[in-house]
Amino acid sequence: MMTIKGMGPLQEGIRQSGSAPDEVIVEGCIHRIREMGKVIFVVIRTSRSLIQCVLDEGGYQLTGLREDGSLNEGDCVRVTGIKKEEPRAFGGFEVHGRSIEVLSVANALPPVSLNKPKLSSGLDVILDHRPIALRHPQQRAIFKLQEGIVKAFRHYLSANDFTEIHSPKTTSAGAEGGANIFKMDYFGQPACLAQSPQIYKQMMVGVFGRVFEVAPVFRAEKHNTTRHLNEYISMDFEMGYIKGMEDVMDTEAAMLRYMMDYLKENYSQELSLLKVELPVVGEIPVLKFKEAKELLAREYGRRVTGNGDLDPEEEVLLCQYSKEKLGSEFIFITHFPSSRRPFYAMDDPNDPGFAFSFDLLFRGLEITTGGQRIHDYQQQVTKMQEMGLEPSDFEHYLSIHKHGMPPHGGLGLGLERLEMQLLGLNNVRYTSLFPRDVKRITP
Amino acid sequence: MMTIKGMGPLQEGIRQSGSAPDEVIVEGCIHRIREMGKVIFVVIRTSRSLIQCVLDEGGYQLTGLREDGSLNEGDCVRVTGIKKEEPRAFGGFEVHGRSIEVLSVANALPPVSLNKPKLSSGLDVILDHRPIALRHPQQRAIFKLQEGIVKAFRHYLSANDFTEIHSPKTTSAGAEGGANIFKMDYFGQPACLAQSPQIYKQMMVGVFGRVFEVAPVFRAEKHNTTRHLNEYISMDFEMGYIKGMEDVMDTEAAMLRYMMDYLKENYSQELSLLKVELPVVGEIPVLKFKEAKELLAREYGRRVTGNGDLDPEEEVLLCQYSKEKLGSEFIFITHFPSSRRPFYAMDDPNDPGFAFSFDLLFRGLEITTGGQRIHDYQQQVTKMQEMGLEPSDFEHYLSIHKHGMPPHGGLGLGLERLEMQLLGLNNVRYTSLFPRDVKRITP
Repeated sequence: MMTIKGMGPLQEGIRQSGSAPDEVIVEGCIHRIREMGKVIFVVIRTSRSLIQCVLDEGGYQLTGLREDGSLNEGDCVRVTGIKKEEPRAFGGFEVHGRSIEVLSVANALPPVSLNKPKLSSGLDVILDHRPIALRHPQQRAIFKLQEGIVKAFRHYLSANDFTEIHSPKTTSAGAEGGANIFKMDYFGQPACLAQSPQIYKQMMVGVFGRVFEVAPVFRAEKHNTTRHLNEYISMDFEMGYIKGMEDVMDTEAAMLRYMMDYLKENYSQELSLLKVELPVVGEIPVLKFKEAKELLAREYGRRVTGNGDLDPEEEVLLCQYSKEKLGSEFIFITHFPSSRRPFYAMDDPNDPGFAFSFDLLFRGLEITTGGQRIHDYQQQVTKMQEMGLEPSDFEHYLSIHKHGMPPHGGLGLGLERLEMQLLGLNNVRYTSLFPRDVKRITP
Repeated sequence: MMTIKGMGPLQEGIRQSGSAPDEVIVEGCIHRIREMGKVIFVVIRTSRSLIQCVLDEGGYQLTGLREDGSLNEGDCVRVTGIKKEEPRAFGGFEVHGRSIEVLSVANALPPVSLNKPKLSSGLDVILDHRPIALRHPQQRAIFKLQEGIVKAFRHYLSANDFTEIHSPKTTSAGAEGGANIFKMDYFGQPACLAQSPQIYKQMMVGVFGRVFEVAPVFRAEKHNTTRHLNEYISMDFEMGYIKGMEDVMDTEAAMLRYMMDYLKENYSQELSLLKVELPVVGEIPVLKFKEAKELLAREYGRRVTGNGDLDPEEEVLLCQYSKEKLGSEFIFITHFPSSRRPFYAMDDPNDPGFAFSFDLLFRGLEITTGGQRIHDYQQQVTKMQEMGLEPSDFEHYLSIHKHGMPPHGGLGLGLERLEMQLLGLNNVRYTSLFPRDVKRITP
């Protein structure tokens, strides 16, 4: 019988060996091998960095798995050596290897070239070989940065008295109804996958006042566009005791400001590898939907149609206007037509037919939809009836209004879309680890 | 056109009003009203606490929504008043109200009694009225604490160079196969819900070295027991460059130690409300499966059967033994029979027929399954063939082994089960916000 002892942390693939001063252990995958006469340069891809190791002929010991004693790109190794300053190497240092141990061998050359600065393959090739293509430093930097985006979202909200929740993804009915629902069989009962945590986060406002969730949502949309995924990560929050939807917008703006600072401070390596220009989140301009449509007609000669939404081209133009004329890469559009918003959206009593509802546009794309929700029981019942919904189908949902709900509102922020726009990528599939679209459900 | 300004945080439902020293604003739901002659005591349930407000007849202003000017339990209010020390009140203070504003009214009495110290209703009643029952201070404390468990898990792993990932939940095949898969229709193709992030977290070890995920998993198990849920939150991690499965077990033990300290430091309020006795996570004893079976026969007269697993009663007895004889509420059982473990489990070459696989038992229940995985390509292909699986069905998965995978291992820790055991609850449904079982898919 043995017992378990504590274990020291491994910091980014390199740690002190403890046997000699300056002696370190580097663990990682061989990214590139370059032989220069009697010296071999072996670049190791560790968890986050590339570390250059130098092996002098006859000056190191090799133990390994291959009978011929060779080293190959893709092999996983443990190098023990002396860390020395070297301004020309990544990170300003290199490791002079005393021993290199092959822990595991690669059996084939990678299907995409991992050790060129840019991954030159097309998106389909990248996605077909996703588990390997993600090993490319730039590809994986996208997801290291994604970690930072989510961390910043949680940090900011936790510090502001929001409680994190986990709502169910298998449900008996879609929160927002409609056709875009994935159906499944639940022990012989019809069920579906949650399109959003909407009804649950509202329920939880009645419990904790302020809540958030970062979790997958599922949309059976048949659009196969560059900005749609059928499964994506939604960063949602919902807050009670608001004075109006402006409180929700304020919170989003402050959260985004914190997020950009957080990324700058903690992910400079990835930001520089991906050549990201972070936006300044100053005061975010706000336009009503009607004003936006008028502006589009006036400034860009767009025909004002009866369509109650913004089309992709209009989103691009509004962002262009905001950036050029208002100095902001973000712009809020508010007061969308009620007819285009869900049953829980609160209508503006001073502007009949329009809802306290907003979108946040960023660099040409909608990344958030949010708004104030109805909190009064009778008002919610009446609105359901007006929309042809049957209140008795919403018994659990309406129980929260019946037993007291504070004025509240919230939003959903699509993680992959936000990051796609931050990084200036042209397809949202780049920012989803294993994207799901109409045609793709593997790997 | 308006612009957005930063907004001050609301701290746990109480904040300075800014108009007078000691004047505060309390926002929350009326938890209890008690009239004592000319004084009304109104207890407000804020986001995390109960705050006692005192209203002296004629000494405060009431603005509100009810025509009769009444206040009712369940109403959401904003109280402005003076904070004064009061040792007999919760938190050691009370607020002497100058004004109380009714923001929203409750239309009915709650279906369960929210303002008694204990919620006396049975589990079925609690679950049938879940959105309201969660408002009870003890019920919601379970989920405030749950937030802390997840935070601690993430903090510890992030600080130890693990990267957080988001793997897809809609997949083309179950990672571990078997019958317990929820099937769905994916645009005319058969698909299923992920039973675990197993194959994805292994793929991501090849990318980041160490990864973790906290996300829902879906198990179509027909067991309707007190410890099964059909959708639950799995806290998973997977780590590369290990020397053996002991590294994984060490990491879990250290993480749990951190978690208990973190809860003690940040959730004392909930721990005390729920009367939780946190376990001491010292050196966790380790028993091999065979040794455990022998011990059960020797100490408790259990018949040793050919069954390659531990049954619930055996888990209870092993924990009892561990606590009484070894001084630990946790115990690792290792080296389970290979035949009972999945295709990716690495076998112990020195103990044929047994795998480098472990369970962690805690207070009578298995809360974790983990182990070392096969990293060598040929070894994985051979094992699949021996198990009657077709390697070509696992092309994406095997690509990670083919192109180089470090020795690695990991585990999954069931959030709801861990918390159920921490809190000494007798049903895992208590620790799931909106539990899903064979019969329940609402609310």
